[in-house]
Amino acid sequence: MDDKINLSEKFSLLPDAYQPAIVGYMNDYKLVVVKTQGEFVWHKHDETDELFIVVKGELTIQLRDRDVVVGPGELFVVPKGVEHCPKADEETHILLIEPRDTVNTGDAGGDRTVVPVEI
Amino acid sequence: MDDKINLSEKFSLLPDAYQPAIVGYMNDYKLVVVKTQGEFVWHKHDETDELFIVVKGELTIQLRDRDVVVGPGELFVVPKGVEHCPKADEETHILLIEPRDTVNTGDAGGDRTVVPVEI
Repeated sequence: MDDKINLSEKFSLLPDAYQPAIVGYMNDYKLVVVKTQGEFVWHKHDETDELFIVVKGELTIQLRDRDVVVGPGELFVVPKGVEHCPKADEETHILLIEPRDTVNTGDAGGDRTVVPVEI
Repeated sequence: MDDKINLSEKFSLLPDAYQPAIVGYMNDYKLVVVKTQGEFVWHKHDETDELFIVVKGELTIQLRDRDVVVGPGELFVVPKGVEHCPKADEETHILLIEPRDTVNTGDAGGDRTVVPVEI
């Protein structure tokens, strides 16, 4: 992981939606690629903000009081403690940046919880 | 800064090359946009890694032992303590992510040192 990272190459290695994979690290943060399609689960991260950068497609980050629609070249920071539920109509490619120990389903847990592999 | 961030809009607000601006925060990290053209200065950050994401153009991150050429949709993490000097032939748009207290010229200092404004 000491070379540059090409996001398109990494997304091509991903299998299904909401199966995240780690493509690199910055200090104690992980750089995570994930394909989204359909709706994820409502959850929050009480200890950390979470940065979403949309590379392809369109991501709707549902908050309890509004939807934030994020397209390619756009990013959004979900503040810590704020409930959110990502959804995407079409397959959407996301780069997520968050602390290494962040769990994808936050406080919600359940069967969508995944420990990401490194690719 | 509680809404989504459109990088193209932010880059359009930037004046000259190597005048960074802060477009958001994630925890104790800053999200910085900067246009590069020409060569910056050799420097290192002894306390932190530094994440470069290229949005437009082509960035050559010169290291002492090699050059890393990073294009749109690619990213590179300069490890802490590693000397580097970015350069770009054409105007290149970069998203940088690093701790809030990181100085753009690292240990080098000098007249290229800038305290970024928020935009």
